[in-house]
Amino acid sequence: MNIGILGTGMVGRAHAAKFVELGHTVMLGTRDGKKTMATNEKDAMGNPPFAEWHKDHTKVKLVTFAEAATSGDVVYNALKGEIALSTLSFLKKQLTGKILIDVSNPLDFSKGMPPTLFVCNTDSLGEQIQSALPKARVVKAFNTMNAYLQVDPRQLEGGDHHLFVSGNDADAKAQVIKIAKEWYGLEHIIDLGDITTSRGTEMILAVWIRLWSTLKTPMFAFKIVK
Amino acid sequence: MNIGILGTGMVGRAHAAKFVELGHTVMLGTRDGKKTMATNEKDAMGNPPFAEWHKDHTKVKLVTFAEAATSGDVVYNALKGEIALSTLSFLKKQLTGKILIDVSNPLDFSKGMPPTLFVCNTDSLGEQIQSALPKARVVKAFNTMNAYLQVDPRQLEGGDHHLFVSGNDADAKAQVIKIAKEWYGLEHIIDLGDITTSRGTEMILAVWIRLWSTLKTPMFAFKIVK
Repeated sequence: MNIGILGTGMVGRAHAAKFVELGHTVMLGTRDGKKTMATNEKDAMGNPPFAEWHKDHTKVKLVTFAEAATSGDVVYNALKGEIALSTLSFLKKQLTGKILIDVSNPLDFSKGMPPTLFVCNTDSLGEQIQSALPKARVVKAFNTMNAYLQVDPRQLEGGDHHLFVSGNDADAKAQVIKIAKEWYGLEHIIDLGDITTSRGTEMILAVWIRLWSTLKTPMFAFKIVK
Repeated sequence: MNIGILGTGMVGRAHAAKFVELGHTVMLGTRDGKKTMATNEKDAMGNPPFAEWHKDHTKVKLVTFAEAATSGDVVYNALKGEIALSTLSFLKKQLTGKILIDVSNPLDFSKGMPPTLFVCNTDSLGEQIQSALPKARVVKAFNTMNAYLQVDPRQLEGGDHHLFVSGNDADAKAQVIKIAKEWYGLEHIIDLGDITTSRGTEMILAVWIRLWSTLKTPMFAFKIVK
């Protein structure tokens, strides 16, 4: 299968590595490939420069956003929340009819730590993306987990926690659920409803951020006990 | 022990019944006792009129807000979110030095269903209450669970889920954690930090509301899997 991933940060890299490992063809999209390869500093999260990571993941092809969006049978939005909407708006044509798995969160670091959300409560980034790309089939998923957990959820209690999905297109959600089960080994998935339910999983970041401080690790996930 | 509870709705009644059962003295505060006893209609949530409930809980004393706040060694804010701040502002004197367990959520039903929050992201109801009553020792707790779960959390998987607490006063939090363990049988408690962490547990309501629809029951709780 062809997988397009938008964003070369920790989240994009984690999914890219996972899919290559599973034998898929991965196109990793960035704004300016030369610049991405030339960066030789760690990012704000302490991740190594892209070129360094890429040496160990040479099967991942670094391409433009448009190429990644065009090539993918399924496309991941692994962009930073703050640039997701503006970047995706230029990819309307390439993403028409495509399943767009939106992993991003509307985190606003501009006012210091802990971050707040730049959209919430009566709207969400998931909705804004679906609205800007009405012909893409947006499915919000994975955003309540750290990147390393997203691609290896069974490392916590054998996967005894929940993945939440939101989206307007029932078939797209069914395919994402299939991917989550077959490729990621996730067994416990809750379909919350249409894309407006992204508000809930994005707003959960407010407690996620504080739990990260309290637990002193980002390796945790939510389980709904009933 | 003397327990003061503010609010005669489902949440206030559940805690009142629990404490009477445990042998404590419970003063349940309301704005206008005569009116509360005279109401003969179910509330918006389908709960029976107060007088009907009270027939089976005669040990619960119905008093004014001020009397409940004065009498309680520990006081519960079980008021509807929308009236919590204005009501509590009149009880500054009575609540001085008291532990005020804030169970309320800032739900805004004025724009239809599902409700949104009237404060979130950069502020919270917990913070607003602490700010309006600087001498009260506010501890946000229990607000991520349905009323019946709050008072009987072990009915779900033997209590294998989490209670979150937020507050500025370490001693008050320690006492609330003791109450949660000894009186409610809760074993898994996460102290998120100061009262600003109420933002997280109040904002979790956005996904809580949607989970209620999806799961078709309000009897669920969050477990942090790590």
